[in-house]
Amino acid sequence: MEVSELDKYGICDGISEIILTSGIKNPNAAPIGLIRKDNKVFIRLYKGSTTYENVKQDEIFAANVTCNPLLFVKSTFSNLENENFKYYHLNSTKIPLLKNSASSVIFRCGEIKHTEQAMTAEIIPMNAMANDYRPRAINRGLTAVIEAAVHATRYELTRNSDFLDLIDRCLETTYKCGGQREKDAAEILLNEIDEIKKRVAGGKDTE
Amino acid sequence: MEVSELDKYGICDGISEIILTSGIKNPNAAPIGLIRKDNKVFIRLYKGSTTYENVKQDEIFAANVTCNPLLFVKSTFSNLENENFKYYHLNSTKIPLLKNSASSVIFRCGEIKHTEQAMTAEIIPMNAMANDYRPRAINRGLTAVIEAAVHATRYELTRNSDFLDLIDRCLETTYKCGGQREKDAAEILLNEIDEIKKRVAGGKDTE
Repeated sequence: MEVSELDKYGICDGISEIILTSGIKNPNAAPIGLIRKDNKVFIRLYKGSTTYENVKQDEIFAANVTCNPLLFVKSTFSNLENENFKYYHLNSTKIPLLKNSASSVIFRCGEIKHTEQAMTAEIIPMNAMANDYRPRAINRGLTAVIEAAVHATRYELTRNSDFLDLIDRCLETTYKCGGQREKDAAEILLNEIDEIKKRVAGGKDTE
Repeated sequence: MEVSELDKYGICDGISEIILTSGIKNPNAAPIGLIRKDNKVFIRLYKGSTTYENVKQDEIFAANVTCNPLLFVKSTFSNLENENFKYYHLNSTKIPLLKNSASSVIFRCGEIKHTEQAMTAEIIPMNAMANDYRPRAINRGLTAVIEAAVHATRYELTRNSDFLDLIDRCLETTYKCGGQREKDAAEILLNEIDEIKKRVAGGKDTE
């Protein structure tokens, strides 16, 4: 399929916040910003993550479009339960997909570049499915809680408390503008941040 | 129709950023945050706006769900061109709708409360239409440019330059994460802010 066809599946120009499902052997889900620019699509994956290992191994994965903040926040800190996955059969392998996404696109890796900390891959769309989706008005609380989750992963990596201030500002927007689902996601996030703080205070490294 | 049915049309729990079209006599469009909470829906409209006058007069309007940032930014500072409207016929009147929205909901006003600066109305959904819509991945640049437009209207009202810093921060996200449409909307917004700054510097009141 052509890159331009991705418009129909919600992956437009710019950075799309999607949930990447990967791992033919060990299905895993993680939120990723997928970059579409000049008719090409790229991902950057950091070493040490399950997604990095899976994509390096299989060179194929799915990008799932959803606006469910619970899936974003849960998959930021741990894997999703089995019941959240379904599978796309390709030859004799099964590529994991997110079950309740608005759409899913199967990508294979094109050119891959490795740096000390990450890999950047141009990715090529192979097939796509639009599921049962609904229009959804822009909700600032939704974007804010996803942004807060990104800051939380950076706090975990750097232990720089500036990120805690950014998280507070984001979650203020979530509690003001979000619906129940966004507020529930914020609660899960705050619990995870408490756990990270404990590890930081105890001087214990994250796994 | 029931408030719970609004889920299907993208107006969920929390604050939905929509474009409100109003004015049986003088069609007008403006971005508004529509509040859905505890199975009720509310809007707050500030005195001095065309939307305020139209809704006070007609007590009926449409909420249009879209993720087109150009429509949000353009309708923040001026009315949209005629070609952007279509009409919903009710008895002998025509209620303006946004032509290319993902969905549109007709609301009538229930209880209205007036304060010195604004009116708050509980609003009752009457009818709704889902149009031809597509899934869309979350794009932080999109929400950021809409947030920047909200800050710009506050800057215009208060002339407090703190809002300019907030706008800068939002547009940084838009230039980093947005697609071409988001960046075009940011350009329009920056031009409008320049105009506001000139008026502020000249000590000239806004109309």
